[in-house]
Amino acid sequence: MKSEKISELTTNRLSIYLRCLNELAAEGSKTVSSDNLAKRFHLNSAQIRKDLACFGEFGVRGVGYYVEDLRQQLTKILGLDHHHRVGIIGAGRLGTALTDYYGFRQTNFEVAALFDADREKIGTVVSDVKIYDVRDFAKIADRQGIDVAVIAVPAEYAQRVLEMIVASGIKAVMNFAPTPLLADEEIKLKTIDLTISLESLSYFLAGSGKNGKE
Amino acid sequence: MKSEKISELTTNRLSIYLRCLNELAAEGSKTVSSDNLAKRFHLNSAQIRKDLACFGEFGVRGVGYYVEDLRQQLTKILGLDHHHRVGIIGAGRLGTALTDYYGFRQTNFEVAALFDADREKIGTVVSDVKIYDVRDFAKIADRQGIDVAVIAVPAEYAQRVLEMIVASGIKAVMNFAPTPLLADEEIKLKTIDLTISLESLSYFLAGSGKNGKE
Repeated sequence: MKSEKISELTTNRLSIYLRCLNELAAEGSKTVSSDNLAKRFHLNSAQIRKDLACFGEFGVRGVGYYVEDLRQQLTKILGLDHHHRVGIIGAGRLGTALTDYYGFRQTNFEVAALFDADREKIGTVVSDVKIYDVRDFAKIADRQGIDVAVIAVPAEYAQRVLEMIVASGIKAVMNFAPTPLLADEEIKLKTIDLTISLESLSYFLAGSGKNGKE
Repeated sequence: MKSEKISELTTNRLSIYLRCLNELAAEGSKTVSSDNLAKRFHLNSAQIRKDLACFGEFGVRGVGYYVEDLRQQLTKILGLDHHHRVGIIGAGRLGTALTDYYGFRQTNFEVAALFDADREKIGTVVSDVKIYDVRDFAKIADRQGIDVAVIAVPAEYAQRVLEMIVASGIKAVMNFAPTPLLADEEIKLKTIDLTISLESLSYFLAGSGKNGKE
């Protein structure tokens, strides 16, 4: 496996392929060619072959890919054969919306706990998930086996929350606060900045942007 | 302006620079060098100079950048001197969370209307935003001057909703449904797929991923 050289864009595409294969498997398809996979899901067949070649030889000449086999391989490559437990810091609208986001449920991610500083919220339950005092984060994260943290607090608190997460030993963080955060190299920090996405739409509407989807 | 060749990664960085400049302006800073801008906000100074050079000569030798001037220029380049009105389709938890997302409020985007098919929700108001019948989308979008649509419905309805949006003449769409959508070239479709982001964390935790933030 040449995983050292795999970019995040490649693994993002693997996620998409896996989703397509899950759909094909649910329909009872046994095999699929890269051309048919591309055609069906608006993908690029050469790209599919190139991406998969990074991880091994999955295709069979004259057959294409065995749907179930490739599905299992991609699940394993993406670490989705392991269960992940998510702690969300910030039990505002965004944090609670994420609690029952359908995307979480599709994957092996389970929201185990919410955290907030608001005494009114602490101890209440949203979508079967309990809201804990953020000051107990390290203790609860350890007890609940949380390995992924989601930052859903206002920008001005985000860096401090990140430091609290890192101090607790969690290495994978998804950040929704629209601000650049500083993290050590050994932390995987994924910022979802909707403001930046909005501004790329605005740039497009201003007539300077090139067309296209992403 | 060499805007034809500008990638979305560049405009995304312009968004970040603008945010930093807004902060500096609020603090009363008059000028800033690319080195200080980079140091302060964990950016790359060579990248800043290269990105800004795509749009003109903003730096002044011995001074750096005039904060207010550069802020105004970037605001204009990103189309943020225009007001945008957003319609959100899907008034579930995610759709309503987006209604008062702080990122929207920071920019020139105003959520003008929510749309849903649920008769229980139609006519109610969330954070001062009214929920309309999705069947009236084109009419309300036109009346309210909506130029940006946000898809916050389950994956299986997303393509149909996109087609409805495009038919109404709206050209900028942000999609939260975790599914690949098919759009014409003249539509700017920005998919925010949290599942893919989660899976890149999972890939990292599985030990195959390279460290780092993004």
